[in-house]
Amino acid sequence: MTERAETADGIVYLVGAGPGDPELLTVKAKRLLEEGDIILHDKLSGPDILDRIDPDRLEDVGTRGHGDTTPQSYVNERMVELAREGKTVVRLKGGDPTVFGRGGEEMRYLADHGVPFEVVPAITSAIAGPEVAGIPVTDRNHASTFSVVTGHEDPNKEESAVDWEALAATGGTIVVLMGVTRLPEYTDRLIDAGLAPTTPVAMVERATWPAQQVVTGTLETIVEAADEADIEPPAVTIIGDVAGTRETALEFLATNYE
Amino acid sequence: MTERAETADGIVYLVGAGPGDPELLTVKAKRLLEEGDIILHDKLSGPDILDRIDPDRLEDVGTRGHGDTTPQSYVNERMVELAREGKTVVRLKGGDPTVFGRGGEEMRYLADHGVPFEVVPAITSAIAGPEVAGIPVTDRNHASTFSVVTGHEDPNKEESAVDWEALAATGGTIVVLMGVTRLPEYTDRLIDAGLAPTTPVAMVERATWPAQQVVTGTLETIVEAADEADIEPPAVTIIGDVAGTRETALEFLATNYE
Ligand SMILES: C[S@@+](CC[C@H](N)C(=O)[O-])C[C@H]1O[C@@H](n2cnc3c(N)ncnc32)[C@H](O)[C@@H]1O
Ligand SMILES: C[S@@+](CC[C@H](N)C(=O)[O-])C[C@H]1O[C@@H](n2cnc3c(N)ncnc32)[C@H](O)[C@@H]1O
Repeated sequence: MTERAETADGIVYLVGAGPGDPELLTVKAKRLLEEGDIILHDKLSGPDILDRIDPDRLEDVGTRGHGDTTPQSYVNERMVELAREGKTVVRLKGGDPTVFGRGGEEMRYLADHGVPFEVVPAITSAIAGPEVAGIPVTDRNHASTFSVVTGHEDPNKEESAVDWEALAATGGTIVVLMGVTRLPEYTDRLIDAGLAPTTPVAMVERATWPAQQVVTGTLETIVEAADEADIEPPAVTIIGDVAGTRETALEFLATNYE
Repeated sequence: MTERAETADGIVYLVGAGPGDPELLTVKAKRLLEEGDIILHDKLSGPDILDRIDPDRLEDVGTRGHGDTTPQSYVNERMVELAREGKTVVRLKGGDPTVFGRGGEEMRYLADHGVPFEVVPAITSAIAGPEVAGIPVTDRNHASTFSVVTGHEDPNKEESAVDWEALAATGGTIVVLMGVTRLPEYTDRLIDAGLAPTTPVAMVERATWPAQQVVTGTLETIVEAADEADIEPPAVTIIGDVAGTRETALEFLATNYE
């Protein structure tokens, strides 16, 4: 306790914004967005959520200067600096903070610098994206496993960190985040790994945003379908039998988003 | 539209309650719990959430009669019956409705019976459980994949539906739900499949509930550790390098739950 007070009087909340619909914020995230002295956010937090926050308290750490991506080190240092000034800092992230959101890195950085912090879980696009489109990631008949992977490799890694063969072998649903650009590559690899070319695939772009868009197809047809629909990031790709269940649900699915 | 009106005037909301902390309800779930005519819930929704709902509108469909589990068919029929009476029905589920929650089955049943429905995503214990204990399911250095599996097989299936060998081969984090009873079995199988016996493992019981409990160990030691700590369901098991990062975070993690 004494040690904490010595190193920083403020606190950092690593808060997930969920997929974008302001009503899918948690009660806690909503409160912290109202109470925080400063909100460090990036682009993925969804326009409808950012629009409701007093601009004076918003600081965009997603891009800086001429549209360049802010280095992670800047975000880390800024959090520590503000906390040491005694501020209540909300570090707002799209989706859940620990799903490909560098939440882990930021937690470690804060701990290493003696800054008290709390992580506030949120809805991840990896589950909610499929869900609002009528696709459950698990299903008693179809899938007793689901795996969430990145389609966008760390450019610093020499080898692919994602083992598509092993994923195919799990027999479960595969959800790919950051998987628009490399869609042709990983669909091919999954077919090579033994998945049927007719395996259902769906893509959900800007899930729960006003401009949500969904395309469906198979491992063989999705590249063309995504191209025709002009699917762009942010989007999630869902691969597996569950992706074929959307049509059943669709007629009676009273969603706000489509 | 005409068809909908013919089949049911009411509507069913399949709503996730999140892991249990009432502040981790979404704004939408909170609103629907206030507005719904009737809330069909089970035990997993968390005592603090259920305590705040007017008991007149609560109907427990988790256990019936002498503590027996309610058959899924009863829940399905009850939802349709109430919707046909014109009611706004909230089907409240622990965590997210589509993560091992039979949300998929219920969606299909409602669609097949012409009942309008909406799915309201929520925070899953599979991600939030680890997270509030200081463990991110993904990590740029440790895990570019995470897989969520059930440790509790469908008793009607002859063979194990979960391919532990393939999961081990993904190299990512493995999160096991419903995995208290069979912990000795699947930790053994993962070692047989080639994971190091020293692979970090953590278990989080009743995540975000007032009585949250965490134990850590390795594939080799966790069975004894869980036994000593008397870990009981509901709990999530996290297997992989990320489970070893908790200690770093712990000193400065200002969580409400421990
Ligand atoms: C850096 S990752 C962060 C994921 C985030 N932490 C989460 O839990 O959703 C960014 C990727 O998340 C996915 N994503 C985030 N928000 C989305 C949304 N509203 N609709 C579809 N995909 C989304 C996309 O795959 C995007 O490329
Ligand atoms: C039938 S599954 C439902 C999962 C739920 N739909 C979700 O998304 O969290 C039940 C299992 O979820 C996990 N679980 C649910 N709530 C939990 C909590 N608060 N803490 C730890 N585990 C929880 C446990 O593994 C439990 O056995």
